[in-house]
Parts: sequence; structure tokens; C-alpha cells
Amino acid sequence: MGSTKLILVLFCLLLIISSSSAAHKKKMQARKPCKRLVFYFHDIIYNGKNAKNATSAIVSAPAWGNRTLLAGKSHFGDVVVFDDPITLDNNLHSTLIGRAQGFYLYDKKETFTAWLGFSFVFNSTAHKGSINFAGADPLMNKTRDISVIGGTGDFFMARGIATMMTDAFEGEVYFRLCVDIKLYECW
Amino acid sequence: MGSTKLILVLFCLLLIISSSSAAHKKKMQARKPCKRLVFYFHDIIYNGKNAKNATSAIVSAPAWGNRTLLAGKSHFGDVVVFDDPITLDNNLHSTLIGRAQGFYLYDKKETFTAWLGFSFVFNSTAHKGSINFAGADPLMNKTRDISVIGGTGDFFMARGIATMMTDAFEGEVYFRLCVDIKLYECW
Amino acid sequence: MGSTKLILVLFCLLLIISSSSAAHKKKMQARKPCKRLVFYFHDIIYNGKNAKNATSAIVSAPAWGNRTLLAGKSHFGDVVVFDDPITLDNNLHSTLIGRAQGFYLYDKKETFTAWLGFSFVFNSTAHKGSINFAGADPLMNKTRDISVIGGTGDFFMARGIATMMTDAFEGEVYFRLCVDIKLYECW
Repeated sequence: MGSTKLILVLFCLLLIISSSSAAHKKKMQARKPCKRLVFYFHDIIYNGKNAKNATSAIVSAPAWGNRTLLAGKSHFGDVVVFDDPITLDNNLHSTLIGRAQGFYLYDKKETFTAWLGFSFVFNSTAHKGSINFAGADPLMNKTRDISVIGGTGDFFMARGIATMMTDAFEGEVYFRLCVDIKLYECW
Repeated sequence: MGSTKLILVLFCLLLIISSSSAAHKKKMQARKPCKRLVFYFHDIIYNGKNAKNATSAIVSAPAWGNRTLLAGKSHFGDVVVFDDPITLDNNLHSTLIGRAQGFYLYDKKETFTAWLGFSFVFNSTAHKGSINFAGADPLMNKTRDISVIGGTGDFFMARGIATMMTDAFEGEVYFRLCVDIKLYECW
Repeated sequence: MGSTKLILVLFCLLLIISSSSAAHKKKMQARKPCKRLVFYFHDIIYNGKNAKNATSAIVSAPAWGNRTLLAGKSHFGDVVVFDDPITLDNNLHSTLIGRAQGFYLYDKKETFTAWLGFSFVFNSTAHKGSINFAGADPLMNKTRDISVIGGTGDFFMARGIATMMTDAFEGEVYFRLCVDIKLYECW
């Protein structure tokens, strides 16, 4: 990993650390993860015109929505299925590390919040196996935590927390998340 | 918490305890939760007319269904996204304690059963953080258990069981669940 | 670069390096499950003509799909809700042991992969309770692992791994999975 890329990962980490609350930090200092991983993943939503590049698609919408445009009322009720590339830095075109696969759904009318169920799937010399995630994503918050609910292969029986940060957001087509995975149960 | 409210919570607890099987009780006596919380949450399904008050909406339906009316065949295949208020007692208009956010889907043609993936999201002085749930809900049973699969903030790394009871059911628009959360892993 | 920054870079680098250790693989070989169960489950997808026999139905599809035919592009975006019979052997008509209930969604355009959230629900003298599963299913692989994220009743607080194998696949209407459940946390 080049120094530029390293600095980018560091930048994400620093942002996450600096925006954690003091109380949270205290607790976290007493608990050191047995494994820690930082990745980016990139989501390009299908909008009717980008079939080639899209990595996700709206598959469900409320009665007032459709499947090529995120619905009004903060996208409440839209369900999106995704197969997103994972990279070590914030460049969509960097070496592919794995795939983030699963779904998210928007679940509030007044602001943007989501619920996620997905896996990081790895099949390289660096990592083989999967990490499974679930939880609420109040995505207007600078950082937010979801649960690592299990893992397979290199991540056999893993449990922990993943801190997510929106690293980029371009219109309603592209976003990029930085994910700081902290495992507290490693087998 | 006023005495009336306390009695209501107690009532829910008593119902849950009294309807547990003897075998289950034996096991449970030997395992005391490290944390226990009882809440109510309230679901008002969008039916095409109640846009203002609705807290949930049908977003998927089988080929024979639609998104403003729960489908025939025990609603099999209907997926509902929700953002439901959590209260300490059974009154929809009581102080908001947090939000229950996620989805449920009906998954049996012959009777009413559901599968749930959701979080309790808290952001008050009493509780900060989230509790993540998943599991089967055979909702015609008086009580049924789902899994607490993780947590964040005050509920960091939580695991346990949530016993749910339908406390009210009004037509196909409103229901209220009493949830008795028993955590057996607390960090 | 100041010395503080340099230390932070080194810290981050160490975290990334330490996470690729293979020591835990050895542990896995030494670990014996505290409970092991092998079952088959059978999925018959609704195709517009088999309403009586179908055990599952497409409830969501991307903009280019519909709910009576699995979509093109490796069924990307199709969400299927199911209530499948569980048997001890590979015969659909064998004694019913329980039901597999929940959903799967197809999440890759170039090949067949899925994401699953479901429960095995048992209510017999042999087994009472539920086992909850979540995870990625790269279904073209001969075997693949998903996570056991929790359980209730006889499977109270269970955690583990389920190895799945496609045992039969007939057109786009029927498939049968063999599931080898290995629990590593039993209460």
C-alpha cells in the first residue's frame, strides 16, 4: 500500500475517532478490538440510464414511489439491493478487495435513516471468508455504528461493531462509505 | 413512571411470564439476564388514506397483492418497512422513548407468521445506542421469542432474547407489541 | 510529516498487518461444535401457475423484472419470501421436521449470489424453538457458509456456522438445500 493510500485510510480513521463522543471514547479505550479493518465501499444506484455501471438497484418502493427514482418523504420504504466493490482507499478504481453484498432500506419519512443487512465477501490471499452486518444507519450522523453479527472463514464466529462514515455523496446516484470494523470476539 | 403506567408494564410482564411453558421457565430460572427492558411499540400501516399518521408502509407484495392493502393468503409475501414510536406504556401518545426501525415480512400462506429485522434506536438521557433484532415471529402465539443479535452505544455487543406479545390489534391498520428484552451478554 | 502523524501511520499499518494473521485457522480445526444438526429444505417458487404447491414467491424485482419470472442479469434484485418444509432426508414428501421461513435476495448481475435472512422454526417433540441465520450465499460454490446469529427455545442464544450445499436444482422452480448446522456456542 502506497503512502498516499495509507494517509487516506488514516484520514478516515481520524475523522471517525475525532467525531466520537467523549463518553463513547472512554468505554472504547477500555475495550481493545482483537481485530480491526478499515475499508471503503462504493454504491452506484441504477437510475434507468446507467445499467452498465450501476452496482445497486431499487427493488421495492412504497405506493408513492417507483424503481428508477428514490421516493419522496426521505426515500421512506425504498429497498435497495447492492453488490458494491470494496477498496482500501477512496478510489472506486483501486484494486478490488472484496464485495459488499446485501440490502439497505430507507425507514423514516422526516429524515434519512436506513436499515442494513449485508456481508463483506472476500476471496483473495489477504482475506478469505465473510463478515455479516446488521443494524440501523442514521445516515445524517457523521458516524454511526452497526453490529457485526457473525463471520465465516478468516472471520469465523466474529462479533463486533462497524463504524460507518459517509465519505462522499454525489446526487442520488453515488455514495461512498468508509467502514471501520472492530471485532471484539475473534476465534 | 406513574403507578398506572407501572401497572401496565407489570401486566405485560405477567402475561408473558404466565404464558411461558414450564420447561422454558425452568431453563430461564437458571439464567438471569444481565439487563432487562420492557417497551411497547406502535405500528400504523399506510392504507392509502392515512399518510400523515402512518408509521409503516407495504413496500413489496406478491404478484397477487398491492401496496395499499395487505395481501390475501395471510398476507404472504408482503414486506413492510416501519419507523414506529417506542413508549414505556401502552399509550401511543406517551413520551417517545425511541424508534423501532426496520422491516417485517409475512411468510406463511395458511396462517399469520412474520420474519423481522429491525433495531430499537435510542437517543435520550436514559438510553443512547441501538439494539438489533432478527427472527421468526409466529404472531398468532400469545408470546414468541426473537433474537437480540447485537447492539451499539449503551447496548454495545449485546446478545439475548426478546419476548414479544401482541398487546392490541385493530383491523389491519394498527397493532401494538409489548417487548420484554432480556440480555444475557452485556459488556 | 510530524512524529505524531508518523506514529499514527505506523499504528494503522500494524492494525492492518495484524489482521491478516492465519493463526485462528488452526483454532477452527481444533474446535468441535457443541451441537450439530443436518437438515434439508425445499423451495418451490411461485411462477403464476403453481399457487397450490409453491412455498415461496418473488415479492420484489428490479425495474427490468416482474414477480412471476426470475429477472435477467442473474436475477439481480429479485427478493423471494419463503416458507419451506424442512426434512431429515432429501425427499420433499418425508416427515415434516419444521419450516424454514424468511427471505433471500439475488445480489449480483454477473453470476448467481444471494443474501439470506431466515429462521428454522421447530415445534415438535424432537426440537422446539428457532435458529436464526444471516449471510451471503455464493450459490455457485459447492458449499458455502452462513452465520447462525441467534436462537430461541432449545437453541437459546445459539451461535455458529451453517454450511449449505445445493442438493438439487430443477429449472427455475424447485431447489433443495442440505444444511449442516454447527453450533459453537450452546447455553
